[in-house]
Amino acid sequence: MEEVDHLDFERKTAEFDVDAMKIVWAGSQHAFDVNDRMARLVASDPAFRKDERPMLGRKDLFKNTLRKAAHAWKRIVELRLSEEEASRVRFFVDEPAYTDLHWGMFIPAIKGQGTEEQQKKWLSLAYRMQIIGCYAQTELGHGSNVQGLETTATYDPKTEEFLIHSPTLTSSKWWPGGLGKVSTHAVVYARLITDGQDHGIHGFIVQLRSLEDHSPLPGITVGDIGMKFGNGAYNTMDNGVLRFDHVRIPRNQMLMRLSQVTRDGKYMQSEVPKQLVYGTMVFVRQTIVADASNYLSRAVCIAVRYSAVRRQFGSHAGGPETQVLDYRTQQSRLFPLLASAYAFRFVGEWLKWLYTDVTQRLQANDFSTLAEAHACTAGLKSLTTTVTADGIEECRKLCGGHGYLCSSGLPELFAVYVPSCTYEGDNTVLFLQVARFLMKTISQLTSGIKPVGTAAYMGRLEQLMKSTCDACSAEDWLKPSVVLGAFEARSARMAATCAQQISTSPSPEDGFTELSSALAEAAVAHCQLIVVSKFIDKLQQDIPGAGVKHQLNNLCFVYALSLLHKHSGDFLSTGCITPKQAMLANEQLRSLYAQLRPNALALVDAFNYTDHFLNSALGLYDGNVYPTLYEQAWRDPLNESVVPEGYVEYIRPLLKQQLRISRL
Amino acid sequence: MEEVDHLDFERKTAEFDVDAMKIVWAGSQHAFDVNDRMARLVASDPAFRKDERPMLGRKDLFKNTLRKAAHAWKRIVELRLSEEEASRVRFFVDEPAYTDLHWGMFIPAIKGQGTEEQQKKWLSLAYRMQIIGCYAQTELGHGSNVQGLETTATYDPKTEEFLIHSPTLTSSKWWPGGLGKVSTHAVVYARLITDGQDHGIHGFIVQLRSLEDHSPLPGITVGDIGMKFGNGAYNTMDNGVLRFDHVRIPRNQMLMRLSQVTRDGKYMQSEVPKQLVYGTMVFVRQTIVADASNYLSRAVCIAVRYSAVRRQFGSHAGGPETQVLDYRTQQSRLFPLLASAYAFRFVGEWLKWLYTDVTQRLQANDFSTLAEAHACTAGLKSLTTTVTADGIEECRKLCGGHGYLCSSGLPELFAVYVPSCTYEGDNTVLFLQVARFLMKTISQLTSGIKPVGTAAYMGRLEQLMKSTCDACSAEDWLKPSVVLGAFEARSARMAATCAQQISTSPSPEDGFTELSSALAEAAVAHCQLIVVSKFIDKLQQDIPGAGVKHQLNNLCFVYALSLLHKHSGDFLSTGCITPKQAMLANEQLRSLYAQLRPNALALVDAFNYTDHFLNSALGLYDGNVYPTLYEQAWRDPLNESVVPEGYVEYIRPLLKQQLRISRL
Ligand SMILES: Cc1cc2nc3c(=O)[nH]c(=O)nc-3n(C[C@H](O)[C@H](O)[C@H](O)COP(=O)(O)OP(=O)(O)OC[C@H]3O[C@@H](n4cnc5c(N)ncnc54)[C@H](O)[C@@H]3O)c2cc1C
Ligand SMILES: Cc1cc2nc3c(=O)[nH]c(=O)nc-3n(C[C@H](O)[C@H](O)[C@H](O)COP(=O)(O)OP(=O)(O)OC[C@H]3O[C@@H](n4cnc5c(N)ncnc54)[C@H](O)[C@@H]3O)c2cc1C
Repeated sequence: MEEVDHLDFERKTAEFDVDAMKIVWAGSQHAFDVNDRMARLVASDPAFRKDERPMLGRKDLFKNTLRKAAHAWKRIVELRLSEEEASRVRFFVDEPAYTDLHWGMFIPAIKGQGTEEQQKKWLSLAYRMQIIGCYAQTELGHGSNVQGLETTATYDPKTEEFLIHSPTLTSSKWWPGGLGKVSTHAVVYARLITDGQDHGIHGFIVQLRSLEDHSPLPGITVGDIGMKFGNGAYNTMDNGVLRFDHVRIPRNQMLMRLSQVTRDGKYMQSEVPKQLVYGTMVFVRQTIVADASNYLSRAVCIAVRYSAVRRQFGSHAGGPETQVLDYRTQQSRLFPLLASAYAFRFVGEWLKWLYTDVTQRLQANDFSTLAEAHACTAGLKSLTTTVTADGIEECRKLCGGHGYLCSSGLPELFAVYVPSCTYEGDNTVLFLQVARFLMKTISQLTSGIKPVGTAAYMGRLEQLMKSTCDACSAEDWLKPSVVLGAFEARSARMAATCAQQISTSPSPEDGFTELSSALAEAAVAHCQLIVVSKFIDKLQQDIPGAGVKHQLNNLCFVYALSLLHKHSGDFLSTGCITPKQAMLANEQLRSLYAQLRPNALALVDAFNYTDHFLNSALGLYDGNVYPTLYEQAWRDPLNESVVPEGYVEYIRPLLKQQLRISRL
Repeated sequence: MEEVDHLDFERKTAEFDVDAMKIVWAGSQHAFDVNDRMARLVASDPAFRKDERPMLGRKDLFKNTLRKAAHAWKRIVELRLSEEEASRVRFFVDEPAYTDLHWGMFIPAIKGQGTEEQQKKWLSLAYRMQIIGCYAQTELGHGSNVQGLETTATYDPKTEEFLIHSPTLTSSKWWPGGLGKVSTHAVVYARLITDGQDHGIHGFIVQLRSLEDHSPLPGITVGDIGMKFGNGAYNTMDNGVLRFDHVRIPRNQMLMRLSQVTRDGKYMQSEVPKQLVYGTMVFVRQTIVADASNYLSRAVCIAVRYSAVRRQFGSHAGGPETQVLDYRTQQSRLFPLLASAYAFRFVGEWLKWLYTDVTQRLQANDFSTLAEAHACTAGLKSLTTTVTADGIEECRKLCGGHGYLCSSGLPELFAVYVPSCTYEGDNTVLFLQVARFLMKTISQLTSGIKPVGTAAYMGRLEQLMKSTCDACSAEDWLKPSVVLGAFEARSARMAATCAQQISTSPSPEDGFTELSSALAEAAVAHCQLIVVSKFIDKLQQDIPGAGVKHQLNNLCFVYALSLLHKHSGDFLSTGCITPKQAMLANEQLRSLYAQLRPNALALVDAFNYTDHFLNSALGLYDGNVYPTLYEQAWRDPLNESVVPEGYVEYIRPLLKQQLRISRL
């Protein structure tokens, strides 16, 4: 389509089959085909333009999102797209909207917690979007601590209704996406009270707005909570505030799969094992990990392409300057992020398998892997979102001044992504959960309880405490066993040290509290090990395509060795490696960077992102950066007039020294 | 003013004299008084309101800034404020504006590079704002590499004029603040050409706009480069694009202090030593370091106050939950940033001294400390801006979900701050300059050239290579000599390792390139040492006020030991400390956190920030967080109507299943 490919010379240096890598990245030929078709469908439809987003005021921005969501739905219906295709369309439209919560939280909550009857009634409405729902859990005063929510649902046996009520200001629901302006219904979490007794937090389906004219129902105060980080970004979403003044809902709108309230107000647990809810959690967090690789890869794609276009210094005899991608500092900041994008891709793929596995086990009443799966997904959610958020900003900085322009696409990418570190569990809180699991795993070793899955290596704790790393050359650091051994030993020893210190403290709880910072670090080490080992597992698979596996191998070791360098304090202080071995690993890492360099551009091409999706003047496929930046600048509203509004009132009087007499 | 102080109970636990600490923070009683008065002046003037900033579209936002700048000038004139007071007013108005560049770059450039005659003419106009100037160096194609700029200034002896011209698209000036819409003049950097010969980059004063009607002069194309990161934030500034089409300026508008072009086109160096320009650089970077402590302290102030208000988990028997500030993970993320804010304050203070010292030496033709001073300021600029940018975002995350709202103040603080990592020298490029200086320092040791100032310790290189740390207990890590010894040894050894590896490579240049990532790390180590040692120096001073010195002592060691923990890989791999000593340092760090905890709130109160300046619902002095968040939410434009614009077109048809027939 474009006439000149300014990056053609870079593409030619690739040493692998890019098309084959695209399939690996997508996960399968089928996934690639669907992605590719849907990405083009969205990119070619002018209704989905998004480059004007940063310039729109809140109201226009929001209305625009409503328009896009409706248009997407229209196209989905017209083209009779499958569920898979529809979800890909929403993905490529790439704009946070109420539909995310409707499909991603409201429907799954009903599926997971509703009885069959409830599912039949509500899901059929929801699937056709005859109602629009959101997920109203968080309150002004409580987020992480769900058990501390203050909204009440008091059963009134006389009318067989619940009274949903917000007793305090801090009990106002606060944050739910889609709540502020759009949702007609919500799954509301509230403290269930029957006969004066508090049964803790339960979910209820509550209608919020009239289906006729969209006005809030009596007793309901609802609105938007205001602007959030960044231009465009998450401001397309109506995160909302909601207060209830004794709102009545019928008894059958409590989600009753796990526990019920009878007509006469008796509270009962159902037969269904409570653990089932963890299945949903594993599912949601798996999508977050997959998303981390989506976001990180976008940022890396922009930064790699721009770093290949951007030249600065090093011109010899009037020749071209050095591409900044050739600077070792640029590589050592950028390539670990490129490797992380791939690493998160594969661990995300594996999490899909884990979800299926857990689901099947749950159906067979086998809860043996649940704690491990839960800890592992919580930790991977935290690890991947933390790295991705920081990584996007690092990519922005890697683009120098131009990365600060909205037209680079990076500011909005960062702003829209960062809340992932907070929602679905604050990352620190989740790492502490992982740490608790690790401490429990260790304490149970003596009772002969064998750790499973990603924690299985802890079963070899004794051995790992005294193992030595036998890397004697830089090349040794390319052996999976050497790398895995070092990561296992580090994680095991960090956890064991914590466990040991806790055991000497007055009480385990005090010890845990006192050491929580070290515990969180141990959790990070454990999660990094998981990612490394799943990447290594991936390499054991048959991967077709000339040179593809070799590149993945390089990426895998860049991922592992850059972590080893960054966290060398962990490895050295626990005696897992020697200073000399750390130096060898670093030497190997430098050699890997050099090997990646000619393949870097092709490795980001393999993501198969359209220019529309990237939305970045710096990340254009054809590298036509400067004319695009230049053209986009002139579209700023400030450039509508040559002399700016305000000149007469606020600039001219200054220049003319008429300040004292002018009205300001 | 406020009725209830929700944080009163926290303030009571402070173990030091907060008022005395305020003086320490401000630098002197006088500085405190001026700051305090000017902060209140701005805060009490409704014209300087800024809470609506994130909601304004670009044009309104910009016009608003013009209004504020004019109003500030009016107040400055009316109240006959001193230069010091005026600069404090601009500081507390806290909104990037063309005035920053006029006062901060345009005027200093003329001062530094203009002849006395030029200064007389142009500065008198500029001081009275009869002209408004900007600093036009960067181009679309060149930022870091100033020598690569493409704009030309060709001397025409026939008319005794320079022709300023933009020969290519990439030669368009791009980024200068104040250029886009306001400046009447610019100092333009261009490649000087006389008689076909290229003399490299020089500065020229160029008039851009008519002083009568503000329209661009013939041959000049000028505009704004578009939206930048974040809402509000730097979008109040008209960073601009500028193209010249053979624009003629008189010969005497070349800045001729350092070199001249005679009437007949002869190029000549002047008597004035070229090194003088470095003085200006030291000055500008010193202000950036001071600013880092301003920004970081703001973010820390918000996060500490909110962490004292926010409670989550840990309620016993219906009592209040735990303040999140009590969680050790929260402390270990937040307290090092609090300590860094203080550390940067003191190193900034010291840089002021350094600037005076360098200036005096230059006047006496003593260039002996120049290279060291230059490296040191470049490095400190990079170190403090990197930490501050990351630190603001960490503070935002520490506030959980609510930190993501603009009303927390943190998103805008981050967005407005991050470009500091890029402008006035990209941080990586600057660290590499420091590394070059370190390599040179080491290579000169053999020739007996003694390093001075902040590099003096390198003179003890041999000794530092074999020194051992003698910390045997956690308490030993509170000895300045132990801490300094470890930081000196680490920095010296990292630099020496690089130097040694470079010496074995084919050429020093190749070696430097290949190792540049390790070199940048060595530069970081060197700069951290400077900050630590200046903090320790500060503690040697007489500091009045009950308990004040004790708190500063704790902060100093929190700063040093948290760095030691974070970079323990450096210390361990170079053998500066043992794993056991690392553990002891960490133990001491935990104990210091516990000692800081009851003083944390008072330590941020000592910054003496008004609620206006902080502009944060989470950081209010009185801790009245929730009602404020709630009230601010309702002010969002989306809440102007209960049913949102777009309902009829885009929501109702969906709900009513009329999608196929509705026009979208
Ligand atoms: C963009 C966005 C969208 C959202 N969408 C929804 C939605 O659709 N529906 C919904 O119900 N909610 C939603 N939320 C809310 C979100 O789930 C919460 O913000 C999240 O759970 C974090 O809780 P919090 O804000 O209470 O953080 P807090 O718990 O207040 O965290 C503050 C600080 O305290 C620390 N902390 C808290 N507890 C502990 C502990 N026990 N130990 C150590 N440290 C601790 C945290 O690490 C953090 O540093 C959304 C939030 C955002 C930002
Ligand atoms: C908000 C803002 C305001 C500004 N205001 C002004 C102004 O008023 N006037 C003005 O003239 N300019 C201004 N600038 C421009 C600013 O000075 C430049 O952006 C800055 O100098 C960085 O240069 P660059 O953008 O060319 O980055 P680049 O040099 O292109 O950096 C891109 C990447 O390449 C790397 N890199 C470059 N060279 C090397 C090397 N030799 N070795 C290793 N790595 C390298 C960098 O580390 C970075 O990662 C402003 C910029 C911003 C963002």
